[in-house]
Amino acid sequence: MTVNLKNFFNPKVKMSKMGEFQELHPIDGLEISAISADLYGDGRDDISLYYFQDGANFAAVYTTSKVTSASINWNLKVKRHFVKALFVNTKNANTFTGVKGAQGLKEIAQTLSKSLTIKSAQSPKGVSDVVKITDLLFASTGVIGEEYPHIKIKNNIPELVKKLRVDQNKFVWFKAASAIMTTDTRPKVAYEECRIGSKLVKISGIAKGSGMIAPNMATMLAFIFTDANIPSVFLKSILKKINSTTFNSITVDGDMSTNDMVAIFATGKAKNSKIYNVLDPKLQDFEKALHRLSLNLAKQIVSDGEGAKKFITINVIGARSTSMAKNVGFSIANSALFKTAIAGEDPNWGRIVMAVGKSGENIIANKIQVKIGNHIVAEQSAVSKSYKESDLKEYMKWDSIDIEINLNLGSGSFTVYTCDFTKDYIDINADYRN
Amino acid sequence: MTVNLKNFFNPKVKMSKMGEFQELHPIDGLEISAISADLYGDGRDDISLYYFQDGANFAAVYTTSKVTSASINWNLKVKRHFVKALFVNTKNANTFTGVKGAQGLKEIAQTLSKSLTIKSAQSPKGVSDVVKITDLLFASTGVIGEEYPHIKIKNNIPELVKKLRVDQNKFVWFKAASAIMTTDTRPKVAYEECRIGSKLVKISGIAKGSGMIAPNMATMLAFIFTDANIPSVFLKSILKKINSTTFNSITVDGDMSTNDMVAIFATGKAKNSKIYNVLDPKLQDFEKALHRLSLNLAKQIVSDGEGAKKFITINVIGARSTSMAKNVGFSIANSALFKTAIAGEDPNWGRIVMAVGKSGENIIANKIQVKIGNHIVAEQSAVSKSYKESDLKEYMKWDSIDIEINLNLGSGSFTVYTCDFTKDYIDINADYRN
Repeated sequence: MTVNLKNFFNPKVKMSKMGEFQELHPIDGLEISAISADLYGDGRDDISLYYFQDGANFAAVYTTSKVTSASINWNLKVKRHFVKALFVNTKNANTFTGVKGAQGLKEIAQTLSKSLTIKSAQSPKGVSDVVKITDLLFASTGVIGEEYPHIKIKNNIPELVKKLRVDQNKFVWFKAASAIMTTDTRPKVAYEECRIGSKLVKISGIAKGSGMIAPNMATMLAFIFTDANIPSVFLKSILKKINSTTFNSITVDGDMSTNDMVAIFATGKAKNSKIYNVLDPKLQDFEKALHRLSLNLAKQIVSDGEGAKKFITINVIGARSTSMAKNVGFSIANSALFKTAIAGEDPNWGRIVMAVGKSGENIIANKIQVKIGNHIVAEQSAVSKSYKESDLKEYMKWDSIDIEINLNLGSGSFTVYTCDFTKDYIDINADYRN
Repeated sequence: MTVNLKNFFNPKVKMSKMGEFQELHPIDGLEISAISADLYGDGRDDISLYYFQDGANFAAVYTTSKVTSASINWNLKVKRHFVKALFVNTKNANTFTGVKGAQGLKEIAQTLSKSLTIKSAQSPKGVSDVVKITDLLFASTGVIGEEYPHIKIKNNIPELVKKLRVDQNKFVWFKAASAIMTTDTRPKVAYEECRIGSKLVKISGIAKGSGMIAPNMATMLAFIFTDANIPSVFLKSILKKINSTTFNSITVDGDMSTNDMVAIFATGKAKNSKIYNVLDPKLQDFEKALHRLSLNLAKQIVSDGEGAKKFITINVIGARSTSMAKNVGFSIANSALFKTAIAGEDPNWGRIVMAVGKSGENIIANKIQVKIGNHIVAEQSAVSKSYKESDLKEYMKWDSIDIEINLNLGSGSFTVYTCDFTKDYIDINADYRN
């Protein structure tokens, strides 16, 4: 009866094919490399570079935390909407690292700009191009407050640039997605294709998550690359719109990181006809594809939540507004009591009702209807007449649990994705730095 | 070096005497009984009664959840400020039990009113007094949504009334406090004396807590009894004031219950001179004593939090306002990542900074100073120059951990009390109903 959680979210993978990753394709105009600067001390890949030969339009959204990493502070100062490269390191968040952390980042930027300028001069096209430090974006993830290992990183930059590859097959993507992991147990990759006008457009995305994935994206990094030709300002509005129902609809532990970043880069190499308006019907297919890809990555993050054994979908309907539905959804999804009950495979719907009650929203208790799977468990302020504990117990053994709350007050709805709360979460997090 | 957590909070108990409970004294005008209606099926005491021979003034504060128990709904309808008895059951929350739950409670009230009226007629004073159902208050705690066992309870009411005792020694208080426990591992009792004018006044209090103890009191019951003669309206304003820095300053898991209730009952038997004004200086001593008692009970609840191994005090100072300090404090205290780090005895101050950042408050990152114990760990957006991991590691082994955050923005402050987040919490809550 149970489904394989780990691939449940992947619409392209048939049940029989679960365990496999989606096949990602190269994005024209992009080069990737990932190597080890030995930041973890175990030889795993920990720094990675995404280089756009002819630059890329881009848009990004960042954590709303008031404490942000040196990388995010850097990016926020980049006022242009056209970049040459993105550099990512794992292991160290470069947050609360003071002046030294910011200075270290700047030195890395200088080395990177030098190495990329040299590379550009050697390009077969013979067109030399100076890569300025303001052409660069940065992301970091890992422990907060530890000294940023900028020397180690800087020393590895020439090698990282040397290893840049145009031909990204699925193994290259896999390697890149692995090089941004922290406590993730597997890389997260997704791929979509769509049409803009008559042109085929490719979208490849990678992400990392695990703990601290909260409303507003938390320690989450997601990088999406496309060969579409779309101005940055339109990319931004599409990304923001999609974000609210994808990366901002997931939570693992309710905590929010100082380093979150979701970014999309468009090389324009697909040469689709120029877009003059974000409402251009030619963009509809692209927007849908980007939404599928983002939701796919978001679900992968949740299902790989620290210690997670079960994937939980909480669908709140009948709310007075989307915002009401969202608050109720997150109130349930962030409840430790609810999440531990799911871990214990206990259909303890009382905790769902508790979490609805504490949301602060003006709900009416006897209008609430709660469904677990297809089973109505509570309505009219009491257990449902059709409630059968044995059926529910059987359902709770599944790897993917669906909860539906109908507030019966209006037509607002929102879906939140989360995971259960297990002893492994405590294990991972009590020991994270050791 | 470590202190015994379990009695850390009790200002009256010397280190050498830890493990002992405070000695509670009888409150004149009060009778108590606690027996087993076998709701748990293991013979433990699960129903209890607090009877005021000549009535009592009272004030109560309740959960702010929008989903509330039948007991709370009942109490909210009691418009008078003078009651004859309080009945409490554990095991079943009587929440989301529909019309049947409310009807069951009414039947219990009728039986109780009959039994207490008979008892009153037999009183040595020979003054017969009809106890009406509107003279009664109720509290329940336990599982939400299970059928309320009103028949079992009703059948035990005559026996419960028969067992009422005037002479409450410490064992009687201990028994009463035990009869309201759910997953608590020990009863919570506290005692204070003070003077109102020339009269000595006694205050005895009991509480239960454990999981779901969140801002706004969560599954918390606290009942405080005094022989002071204070009008209900003044009791109410004192209770509300004290509550904000005692029962509303604690959190275990961030969840909030449908059944919370903190109530104070005053029999008036101390015969202190009449109070005409809540600002009467004669009340100052009483207010202080009540604050000590409430904080004592609140700390006992936290230190007996589900699975708790460590007691954590988070003191936020230098905020722009009390509300800002409180939000920052709870943002830390409810962070699963922070609480698991404490469980792992890891001085991972990065997670404290993360939680400050996600609070939503308009803090300034490089003004924050973080102290763990007496050690400054972070300031000026970086690890402190005096930071010594080995000292911190030693400190983290203590049972009681003090955290101080100075936001350096103003003079607002607030202290939040919480516990660590251990694997035992998951064990207890994954399995609660089994």
